[in-house]
Amino acid sequence: MSNPSLLAGLDIGGSKVLAVAVETSSDDSRPRVIEQVRLTTFQGPEGVVDTASRALTALAGRLAGRNGRPGGPAEMFSGVGIGVPGLVDAERGAVTHAVNLGVGTGGLALADRLQRRLNLPVVVENDVNAAACGVAAHLRLGRVDLAYLSIGTGLAAGIVLNGVLRRGPNNTAGEIGHVPVDPSGPLCACGQRGCLEVLASGSAIDRRWPLPPGTAGFPAQALFDAAAAGDPKAITVRDEVAGHLAAAVRMLALTVDVDLFVLGGGISEIGEPLRAAVAAALDRQAEGSAFLRGLDLSSRLSLIPREQPVAAVGAALLARTDVPIPDQIPAAVPAAVAAETTEDVPA
Amino acid sequence: MSNPSLLAGLDIGGSKVLAVAVETSSDDSRPRVIEQVRLTTFQGPEGVVDTASRALTALAGRLAGRNGRPGGPAEMFSGVGIGVPGLVDAERGAVTHAVNLGVGTGGLALADRLQRRLNLPVVVENDVNAAACGVAAHLRLGRVDLAYLSIGTGLAAGIVLNGVLRRGPNNTAGEIGHVPVDPSGPLCACGQRGCLEVLASGSAIDRRWPLPPGTAGFPAQALFDAAAAGDPKAITVRDEVAGHLAAAVRMLALTVDVDLFVLGGGISEIGEPLRAAVAAALDRQAEGSAFLRGLDLSSRLSLIPREQPVAAVGAALLARTDVPIPDQIPAAVPAAVAAETTEDVPA
Repeated sequence: MSNPSLLAGLDIGGSKVLAVAVETSSDDSRPRVIEQVRLTTFQGPEGVVDTASRALTALAGRLAGRNGRPGGPAEMFSGVGIGVPGLVDAERGAVTHAVNLGVGTGGLALADRLQRRLNLPVVVENDVNAAACGVAAHLRLGRVDLAYLSIGTGLAAGIVLNGVLRRGPNNTAGEIGHVPVDPSGPLCACGQRGCLEVLASGSAIDRRWPLPPGTAGFPAQALFDAAAAGDPKAITVRDEVAGHLAAAVRMLALTVDVDLFVLGGGISEIGEPLRAAVAAALDRQAEGSAFLRGLDLSSRLSLIPREQPVAAVGAALLARTDVPIPDQIPAAVPAAVAAETTEDVPA
Repeated sequence: MSNPSLLAGLDIGGSKVLAVAVETSSDDSRPRVIEQVRLTTFQGPEGVVDTASRALTALAGRLAGRNGRPGGPAEMFSGVGIGVPGLVDAERGAVTHAVNLGVGTGGLALADRLQRRLNLPVVVENDVNAAACGVAAHLRLGRVDLAYLSIGTGLAAGIVLNGVLRRGPNNTAGEIGHVPVDPSGPLCACGQRGCLEVLASGSAIDRRWPLPPGTAGFPAQALFDAAAAGDPKAITVRDEVAGHLAAAVRMLALTVDVDLFVLGGGISEIGEPLRAAVAAALDRQAEGSAFLRGLDLSSRLSLIPREQPVAAVGAALLARTDVPIPDQIPAAVPAAVAAETTEDVPA
């Protein structure tokens, strides 16, 4: 029999998949990862289905070994949530497009395929959105308003409002990477000029601070190390990148308004020096503006919790069967204009 | 006895107050304005309380005259909603700061004062937020996601998500006027440079297209008229302003994501030529970007309904006693990460 409080979460990346078993409880404790498995990702639609299926079977096997009782995913979990790096139709549980997984414009009905194979409920979510949910759960703030900034190859935000993931009716909530902030900036892959992504992502850093030919490593770390060592050019590049990330924070504060801004994604492996650089940029931007100083944005900035598989945990939490599958289509029902918290969860 | 479906809404401006009596019903019809009164606004905290009180008494008097039965506001209305141009603490029903009403940093406990004087429930909301609610109700889309752009002396957006007003935990949701979009732009009153407000508000147009000395009129209308007549300088200014408004729309689409963008505020009296200019700017921005074209932002742009007192009606709707007074403070309750629509109203 499945454990109603045990969920499985998958974070499928381009090279590896992480599967976690997550125990939730009704008190205010954090969701607890009680087992995890990491395997190689297979590319392409069939590969992704196989990857998820293998990872879940391996995860269930580990748990079965601990319990001394055999059991597959359907016996072990009440639901599965999957985070993928790409465009997702969460309502249909489908991957619309995921370049890094080899899923092209034909898409992949991932939830349907996996549900049929494993006989348990599956939800699919964009990995940045899933991570935002994982961070919110980790912080144990039920009705938290936060933005999780994923700074990696690309730049995007996962937004949680009143404890609820904001996707938006067009699935473009948090797509801040493609907001232009400098009319004279470089051309972005999206076709616009001076987008945040082309100025402040990992790819932007790779371009502005390339590693010497023949060396391996992490250009963003090399940039921050050089800046810390006093290299004036590195300081300039670091502070410009940090300034654009600060602009992203300010923009989120003045559009959607959240309390917390959490830096994550590959670039956040730099750790505290990244947070400090963005916080310093926020303080510089507020220097001349009592209005901005009043928002105290730099004190609301933090780093993703270390060693926390937030995307996998967040995906798992989205699979809870006590909440319905999302339905984003505005219904033509009587106007229900109301104050923000009428939809509140019970106190 | 008060009519449980009859609400009063006030839109208090710097020179005039509009009071409307709004009838709501449970079917899908629009809220109906059945009576309205317009009076002069008195400045200062005492003046604002008197203004609201006088307007409500006059409105009740009109209704009493129609019914042939005497009655004051408490007998006539189940609640009062007030929209004011300024900073509002909606939870406390207080005006925090409203320059145009002569309410300084000492603030005004408007709801408390009026409740005691008139003996009926009062809510207070920023006028742009109230107008966004009024637009949503007018459109009769219950769970609509929309942004109402108020383009007047300042520039701000009222945001409705899933049919619910978004204020944000710091009351800065929709404060897009103070997002810088051009690092080399003019200094804004907020202390930053190149904010949307200093580039695309009515004040910005007044500065860039001043009326000849000694003439009276509406500079924005003069600008659009001159552009329509082929004046190349007017066309340039119009298109630059429209480009910045288009940037505001794009930014809202890629942060909070809404379906509809509704242009309002004093500048929207220009009407269709304003909408057309912003739509054309959105199309120009999307020319090189399949990503942006896919969002089809220009087709999601509309004008505020003409002759609709949306701020007063929206304020009235926020006073419905069947919904609780907002409480924006995130509670330290168990993590309630859930899909966006778990808080849905019954189908």
